[in-house]
Amino acid sequence: MTTEIEPAAAGASSAESLLGAHLADQAGRFLRALPDVDLSTLRRVDGALHGFGALLDPAWGETLRGDLAALVVTLGQERGYTRRLTRLLTAIDSLTCTDASSVPTPRSGDDSGVAVGGAPEPAIGGLLANHPGAPKARAMLDRQLTLARSRSHTAALQELGSARFHSLADRMTLLVSDLPLRAPAESHPPEQLLAYAGRMGEALELTVSRLPLDRAAQPYNGDALHRVPVAADPLHSAHEDVAWTRVSAAVRYARYALEVCRPLLGARTDEPLAGLVHLAAHLDEQQDAADAAEAAALAARTPRITPATAYVLGVVHADQRLEVEAARHAFSRSWPDFITSGWLTDPWLARST
Amino acid sequence: MTTEIEPAAAGASSAESLLGAHLADQAGRFLRALPDVDLSTLRRVDGALHGFGALLDPAWGETLRGDLAALVVTLGQERGYTRRLTRLLTAIDSLTCTDASSVPTPRSGDDSGVAVGGAPEPAIGGLLANHPGAPKARAMLDRQLTLARSRSHTAALQELGSARFHSLADRMTLLVSDLPLRAPAESHPPEQLLAYAGRMGEALELTVSRLPLDRAAQPYNGDALHRVPVAADPLHSAHEDVAWTRVSAAVRYARYALEVCRPLLGARTDEPLAGLVHLAAHLDEQQDAADAAEAAALAARTPRITPATAYVLGVVHADQRLEVEAARHAFSRSWPDFITSGWLTDPWLARST
Repeated sequence: MTTEIEPAAAGASSAESLLGAHLADQAGRFLRALPDVDLSTLRRVDGALHGFGALLDPAWGETLRGDLAALVVTLGQERGYTRRLTRLLTAIDSLTCTDASSVPTPRSGDDSGVAVGGAPEPAIGGLLANHPGAPKARAMLDRQLTLARSRSHTAALQELGSARFHSLADRMTLLVSDLPLRAPAESHPPEQLLAYAGRMGEALELTVSRLPLDRAAQPYNGDALHRVPVAADPLHSAHEDVAWTRVSAAVRYARYALEVCRPLLGARTDEPLAGLVHLAAHLDEQQDAADAAEAAALAARTPRITPATAYVLGVVHADQRLEVEAARHAFSRSWPDFITSGWLTDPWLARST
Repeated sequence: MTTEIEPAAAGASSAESLLGAHLADQAGRFLRALPDVDLSTLRRVDGALHGFGALLDPAWGETLRGDLAALVVTLGQERGYTRRLTRLLTAIDSLTCTDASSVPTPRSGDDSGVAVGGAPEPAIGGLLANHPGAPKARAMLDRQLTLARSRSHTAALQELGSARFHSLADRMTLLVSDLPLRAPAESHPPEQLLAYAGRMGEALELTVSRLPLDRAAQPYNGDALHRVPVAADPLHSAHEDVAWTRVSAAVRYARYALEVCRPLLGARTDEPLAGLVHLAAHLDEQQDAADAAEAAALAARTPRITPATAYVLGVVHADQRLEVEAARHAFSRSWPDFITSGWLTDPWLARST
């Protein structure tokens, strides 16, 4: 097997220098964007520390990862509530519309329209069209999620003014010039990065193997309503949702590890990276829908709501769980194509240490 | 093309005598079963009158069909409420169960179970597991549908004692011996029945062509919740549900017409008849689920229910519309196989008059 290193990377002296250049680039982006924080930059740094941690000072790496994770959670919450709000208001507007031809459908690339042989009147709409509880339910979701978003915004501002954030920014500044290595005197050949990235691919395959993928591949499998996680303890999501969340993380790690290898592999990373972005979109969709379903269920527990409002929230909850099922179905259809594209068994990545 | 008439039918003198024998057989079954009424016998008589009406006395045929239809509606209601009740109680029990492995799922032949890598605790259940509104919603559906069923039972008993029913029984007795023909002096060759049955196949193809079948073939197409019939006038169902109901009738007519031709075609009817029974099962399923969804929505309009009860009914309504979508999806997958099996273009049936 010949070692087809890209010309641009051929001059790279070591795995350490390539990783250092990648982290310096990400840290530079982070610092230039301040006071805005680009969460995907933070996730890329975290991904590089996770995937190539064997090359780095362990104590430094783990502390930085912990601080990055806390920041991503705190800053991510506000954006999460914004997405949840948009999703739920879009859903309720679609469920209450009286002419579906004027409303974009949530899924499917189908454009056949109403399509019942030229009937003139618009008689297809949302399940909650003209339902008296819909305006109140919409207003309640709007109010509750806007309030939650405001609280998250305040928490994010506090975080950005905290000593922890300033310490993190200092470490990102250091990262631009000096990468704390595990063995500063040693260096590894550039191809070592490929072996580590290959392990991220293997880890992804392992987490996906723990999903009930055969079931998800069956449309209308009942997971939307009849087999959903039972959250006995609200602080701990039930394990099936957790299994999907782990796959999201594994896709992210595989993607960011492969990005680090781009100087070595060049255009050969294009297809697998596009595949990973595609898979991540389905996973984000099912996570957002699961979060929105939970928000609808929570709103239904508000004291003194009317039965009509509660009924509408029941339909919205079911609708969002159906979106979870649909997104997992879509993932289950995309995954085999991704696997057969073969990047996980690419000789570059599979060449283990 | 040679005319391969079955040996058993080779001695049949005419289309009229074959039709007469079929109707005499059905009328005999009806009379022997009394005081029980087998609705499928009534539907078979109606189907024969519809498919082969060109051979029969028109005034007699249309009057009998009207009386048969009224009887099927009146007697069918009680059975409809029984099915609706069973379906809704099964749905609510599945939605509220806390261990899906012990509850049969409504759809899918999948048996992969919970399947998340050997986790010990049962954490997958229905969306309404432990929901405080579930017992009240279940009791309300049980009460309302049992009451409706009792009323239908009373109406059915009254119908069976009515002058109209006695008149119908008299005409069925006549049917055993004397079939009122359009032109008693004439007779047609037996193959004429095949031409009429072929028309039922063409009519089926036409009604199916009016369905949004491309959309139904796309799983999670949004028809469960985002594109459903809007019943502006509760006495008139909206047209998309009506289009599906028409296909149910067309499948029934095609099936019963083909049964009349069995003495001519023999075992060649086995496969198309099995196909029609299979299609009818999907159509019955979507009809039952649509009726159950409506019953849940109606129950939610009961005055003075609690918000928790209303919320549960909202989820049940959505669940049953999802079953409608799933059954239509299944039909859309079965239909192309049925068409390519070719019975609608079978030379026997396509040979038009």
